[in-house]
Amino acid sequence: MKVYTYTQLYNFAFDIFIKMGCNVPHATTATTVLLNADARGIDSHGIARLVGYVRLWEAERINANPQIKIIHETPSTATVDGDAGLGLVVAPHAMQIAIDKAKQCGTGWVSVQNSNHFGIAGYHAMMALQEDMIGIAMTNASALVAPTFGMEKMLGTNPIAVAIPTKNEQPFVADFATTTAANGKLELLQRKNLDTPIGWVQDKDGNESTNAHALKHGGALLPLGSDREHGSHKGYALGSIVDIFSAVLSGASYGPWAPPFPAYVPMPQNMPGKGLGHFFGAMRIDAFRPADDFKQHMDNWISRFKNTKPIDANNPVLIPGQPEFEMEKERMANGIPLFESVVEELKVLGEKFGVVL
Amino acid sequence: MKVYTYTQLYNFAFDIFIKMGCNVPHATTATTVLLNADARGIDSHGIARLVGYVRLWEAERINANPQIKIIHETPSTATVDGDAGLGLVVAPHAMQIAIDKAKQCGTGWVSVQNSNHFGIAGYHAMMALQEDMIGIAMTNASALVAPTFGMEKMLGTNPIAVAIPTKNEQPFVADFATTTAANGKLELLQRKNLDTPIGWVQDKDGNESTNAHALKHGGALLPLGSDREHGSHKGYALGSIVDIFSAVLSGASYGPWAPPFPAYVPMPQNMPGKGLGHFFGAMRIDAFRPADDFKQHMDNWISRFKNTKPIDANNPVLIPGQPEFEMEKERMANGIPLFESVVEELKVLGEKFGVVL
Repeated sequence: MKVYTYTQLYNFAFDIFIKMGCNVPHATTATTVLLNADARGIDSHGIARLVGYVRLWEAERINANPQIKIIHETPSTATVDGDAGLGLVVAPHAMQIAIDKAKQCGTGWVSVQNSNHFGIAGYHAMMALQEDMIGIAMTNASALVAPTFGMEKMLGTNPIAVAIPTKNEQPFVADFATTTAANGKLELLQRKNLDTPIGWVQDKDGNESTNAHALKHGGALLPLGSDREHGSHKGYALGSIVDIFSAVLSGASYGPWAPPFPAYVPMPQNMPGKGLGHFFGAMRIDAFRPADDFKQHMDNWISRFKNTKPIDANNPVLIPGQPEFEMEKERMANGIPLFESVVEELKVLGEKFGVVL
Repeated sequence: MKVYTYTQLYNFAFDIFIKMGCNVPHATTATTVLLNADARGIDSHGIARLVGYVRLWEAERINANPQIKIIHETPSTATVDGDAGLGLVVAPHAMQIAIDKAKQCGTGWVSVQNSNHFGIAGYHAMMALQEDMIGIAMTNASALVAPTFGMEKMLGTNPIAVAIPTKNEQPFVADFATTTAANGKLELLQRKNLDTPIGWVQDKDGNESTNAHALKHGGALLPLGSDREHGSHKGYALGSIVDIFSAVLSGASYGPWAPPFPAYVPMPQNMPGKGLGHFFGAMRIDAFRPADDFKQHMDNWISRFKNTKPIDANNPVLIPGQPEFEMEKERMANGIPLFESVVEELKVLGEKFGVVL
């Protein structure tokens, strides 16, 4: 592992986005979203993905200068066309529209078509916190997941993030894939040549498997719950809801037709909509009760849950988002470690664009 | 099993609600919601629970004549005080407010305090369908679930329902507890004296258990995902979101302080809010795109998912809500079977109130 400061990685990614042709505000937003993943410890969605975004741009699947537009709206809703821009840019733009709508009429809800991978869902949801709002973000993604009883990959890992403001405690920030294991966790095992637990993936015939490379051989990730007996139909339903809110509601491409992230994978045939889809929500706390009351009760909720009697005294009950806040503090102070293989890839990318890491 | 027609059971439950002192519109609503569970095959939430509601009323925890009021609102939101009414009555009232708000400004969102058990979440969510809206319903519930790493019961089974309109296909209706197994499934195994699979419950020390009676001996239900390795922190986060939206946002009693359903269980000490909480949402489809476009794409989504290559040709991939629609058709034609023990309990109840089953 090699350790870089946040600023070193920020400057590198920013310069690459500028070389791609992004304007300064867009490059700033994209870099901030991307680096937030590294800071929070969600390494699979941070700078390690920069090469992937560049390849999509080279394949002309990403437009570095999108004209992001509202194409339909009501007082509390909007549908946004991302103009094939970086999801890292389109998503914060759309979330800001949701926040502005909420200021006007209590809540704001935005469905987005014609976008791309938007980084970590949690970043966008957390934009609502400083406004004393609850933030919600979700996205569909390229199909890697088999529905319960199915053998085919039909859904993405379709994450959901919900950020809820507090008074003195750290905010509540849930951010999770609707599968048993996120694809990033699988990639980590692949890199180390380790097996997965039972219940993460199935093989090409739909049998249980512990092969971390199962997806490359026709297998699939499993929905949260793993199998029918343990509620995989619920994870499948959740992933479906994310797909429908993000893509059917907006006019993006849904289900097995969602555009793939790796640029070498051909685009699906007969896509029923435009690009990837996202869905954002912002709810003003004081649209329901005084914000200060709510935030005091959230502190009470959090301290009560932190004090749940633990099974093992060394393993206390955690609040969603707590490990990421702790990681962010640590990494902003002591730097962000990257795998040598990631560093190598970034250096090759830097040489191509004349940017030094 | 003894089989009754829908109308026989409807008339019995209606008469009981009238004897409790409900007015005719309230008794009609309560009976319709209750019986919808029996019709759809969700037996744990149907007429078998009637005795439970009556006991709560006898214990003066349910007000048969509630004055349901909006206590706070914006154009797209409301907070509702259920006045300790039957959740079966309060919930459809609040969902109607969400629908009316959506008519005005695209979406409507209602958080409810001071309510009680509201029957099946799916009924309320489905109220939106006839208006070409997406419906969302959730509720907190008495604590039966231990958070990941925890030994204490801190959350209810906190269900989420999402109903989405279609054109010619049956609507998409997801309705699920945020636990691996709903409590109703556990009750079924208890009645038959069978063990649970691993991953449904833990014992009083937090060890894995297959004892369907574990909850009576200090054990707990497990969040969707079962254990940390299989994503139980995601089920815990989902259950928490339902608790916060339903109860912290509205001013109801949350987490381990949620009021219990069985009337013999004492009320928690130092409750931080009033009664049980719910949360409802309605989103007009044409607030995002023309309703007909959307519904055609939903039909396409559904037919593509139904045609997922199955692992076993006799076990096709199902759409959320499909088994319940098939059950409803079957039971409306051929009647609703009840366990003898349920029939006995209802007969005793009927005798007490002078109502014949």
